[in-house]
Amino acid sequence: MTSDIQLLAVRGLPEVKPGDDLGALIVSASASIGLTFIDGDILIVAQKIVSKSEGRLLDLATVAPSQQAVSIGERQQRDPRLIEIILRESKSIIRRDAHVLITETHHGFICANAGVDRSNVDGVDCVALLPVDPDASARALQNRLRELLGVSLPVIVTDTFGRAWREGLTNAAIGVAGLEPLLDFRGLPDDHGRELSATVLAVADELAAASGLLMRKTERIPVVVVRGYDFARGDGSAGVLIRPKERDLFR
Amino acid sequence: MTSDIQLLAVRGLPEVKPGDDLGALIVSASASIGLTFIDGDILIVAQKIVSKSEGRLLDLATVAPSQQAVSIGERQQRDPRLIEIILRESKSIIRRDAHVLITETHHGFICANAGVDRSNVDGVDCVALLPVDPDASARALQNRLRELLGVSLPVIVTDTFGRAWREGLTNAAIGVAGLEPLLDFRGLPDDHGRELSATVLAVADELAAASGLLMRKTERIPVVVVRGYDFARGDGSAGVLIRPKERDLFR
Repeated sequence: MTSDIQLLAVRGLPEVKPGDDLGALIVSASASIGLTFIDGDILIVAQKIVSKSEGRLLDLATVAPSQQAVSIGERQQRDPRLIEIILRESKSIIRRDAHVLITETHHGFICANAGVDRSNVDGVDCVALLPVDPDASARALQNRLRELLGVSLPVIVTDTFGRAWREGLTNAAIGVAGLEPLLDFRGLPDDHGRELSATVLAVADELAAASGLLMRKTERIPVVVVRGYDFARGDGSAGVLIRPKERDLFR
Repeated sequence: MTSDIQLLAVRGLPEVKPGDDLGALIVSASASIGLTFIDGDILIVAQKIVSKSEGRLLDLATVAPSQQAVSIGERQQRDPRLIEIILRESKSIIRRDAHVLITETHHGFICANAGVDRSNVDGVDCVALLPVDPDASARALQNRLRELLGVSLPVIVTDTFGRAWREGLTNAAIGVAGLEPLLDFRGLPDDHGRELSATVLAVADELAAASGLLMRKTERIPVVVVRGYDFARGDGSAGVLIRPKERDLFR
């Protein structure tokens, strides 16, 4: 037989609210669709529900835009209060055009609009921000699930990011707990006995991208379980997926 | 129950040689591990075996490096004949540093070393080049599998690419046949009834990345079947995944 990997969709979560026990909601939703977690499963969780449970929501009505935000808002024909939040969530603006700000977030992620997002958020003027520390969010969820289930499941928090050079968004890992995000083959022989010189695979991003196949924007599937993937356990941290500025040719 | 997706590894392919009937090799290897293709399966194939079957191999001993290649080779301490091939496979150099050339290939892909690769190739001085037209490669394989099996399976040809800003490689789609590489949600309502403004998902890249979880560099798994993914049929072309230069902020 063939080795294989399964991607399992966790449906039926209620609307997540600030302060909700996300681990308990996931366990309950999984149970209701007959999904029992087993050792070796990896839990991939959409950023949006993590942010909601952590109260990382903001009513734009409470935001006074700075002069810079007003100025960018005028040029981009966007709500200056939204621009203000994007700037507050950013270390620096990497690029801008007529429609979008590509910024470096305080975590170090480079993405559109600092990950600030209006979709799938209640309230006309409400936006969701990225978690303050997505690695800590992943770790907390891993710990909570261990309490509830008795198994230690690696957790990846994911968001949809754009890419340089390529159209369309893919899911990327912004928080990691319990597995090594990078798999380093350098120094190992290839199938022909030659040393592999430049092969470090971003497995956490490949896992996140795989989960994106089930996390459609218009369906309510904020959690995906990857079963059967032979991962390397580790403390994890999505920080290792961020290329240091001095080694990055594209900013 | 939960909807799910399976990733199935096709092992046991022989070393692929120029002129080989790749479709027949895949059908035979699949049969020998008890894997029967069904309607709805997507076939994801590593670029390396496509290139080998198409004879896109080159012995560096036959290459006379240009002055530019010699000069770059000296600065990067790399084989000038390899640099020469990278330059020939490229439309332009996008970035360079002490170790690598990031170029735009004639197809329009932006990647390290124009996709020219020494790993998993027979012969000390032999390199593999990307297929001349990976969409055509995917289409030819789709047609051949239809002849052999009577079922029309979408095909994605994939290669491991680096990314701006992020460490590690992930599998990306370089050739597509039989499915829409981009899934466009613009104008559709989100779960809260608000219009999704900027959501085009690069599903072909997410499918490719998912296959990367099984296509480890040191194991011989050059083909992965994705089963259970609800895709949109279409003519396909990995060209739509390439952001036009005038809309790209990062070159």
